[in-house]
Amino acid sequence: MNTPIRILGIDPGLRRTGWAIIDAQGNSLRFVGAGTVTSDGKADLASRLCQLHDGLDAILHDHRPDEAAVEATFVNKDASATLKLGQARGIAMLVPARAGLPVAEYAPNAVKKTVIGVGHGDKKQIHMMVKVLMPKARFDTDDAADAIAIAICHAHHRQSATSRLAMEALK
Amino acid sequence: MNTPIRILGIDPGLRRTGWAIIDAQGNSLRFVGAGTVTSDGKADLASRLCQLHDGLDAILHDHRPDEAAVEATFVNKDASATLKLGQARGIAMLVPARAGLPVAEYAPNAVKKTVIGVGHGDKKQIHMMVKVLMPKARFDTDDAADAIAIAICHAHHRQSATSRLAMEALK
Repeated sequence: MNTPIRILGIDPGLRRTGWAIIDAQGNSLRFVGAGTVTSDGKADLASRLCQLHDGLDAILHDHRPDEAAVEATFVNKDASATLKLGQARGIAMLVPARAGLPVAEYAPNAVKKTVIGVGHGDKKQIHMMVKVLMPKARFDTDDAADAIAIAICHAHHRQSATSRLAMEALK
Repeated sequence: MNTPIRILGIDPGLRRTGWAIIDAQGNSLRFVGAGTVTSDGKADLASRLCQLHDGLDAILHDHRPDEAAVEATFVNKDASATLKLGQARGIAMLVPARAGLPVAEYAPNAVKKTVIGVGHGDKKQIHMMVKVLMPKARFDTDDAADAIAIAICHAHHRQSATSRLAMEALK
């Protein structure tokens, strides 16, 4: 019997970064916690990045996840928004990587496809399916709900991802 | 007499991040060191961000700067490049901020205006003026030369920046 794998899902954003912790054991998923790390919009950028860092670091210390999954940022047409998201995303990937966790990346349509069955859909559908797949899930923001969806996506894909990484290591 | 202020200039990039350390005392500038932190293009993104983090962290430990200045990324039309730069820049701002340093940001044209007198100019002109302003400066890459220019820019602007921050703190 496999031991459960604890997964940290992150939906990065400079203002609000959603996080979720779930335990995956085979096909069974268990909700552990979810929430939102916020940064103070009035603070300077460097301080805001520190706030995101410290918030995510505290979650790692509290929940000790084994693996992390981060949403691959949607690259929109607004370069300034893309840059801000990139900065937050750099922190979201750095914190688990420095703690020694493998960090997987999933495109938004991969997350949607896993959770709602198709590669497109609105937030409402994602939230509804998160509640169906994980009835005990509780989330305070859209970002936390998205982070749960990312963690679920990783739980479904991690075995193939692990094999792929193992293959790459053998190259 | 003022004590010298040690400045860390950073030109962030995912592949190559330039860094420079200079000491500023009134109008007098002294070159301390410059170089380039690189990340392994074959590694995954999270590992590359760790490499940038650890490289910059080592420079902070070796040189103990008092203040940091980071180039405000040029927002170009390629969203994917902007995102990569954003991720690297997030790390470049986080590392000195976590060490308690104030982190200033300068737009590329502000750096050029300080170093070559006008807000536009090519890399050759910047390198030439860096050598004129700081004859002992040594740099291995364009990124390191740019980092010296950023540090020089901060040395020239920091007093007004400090007053501005002090004003903001009084609000």
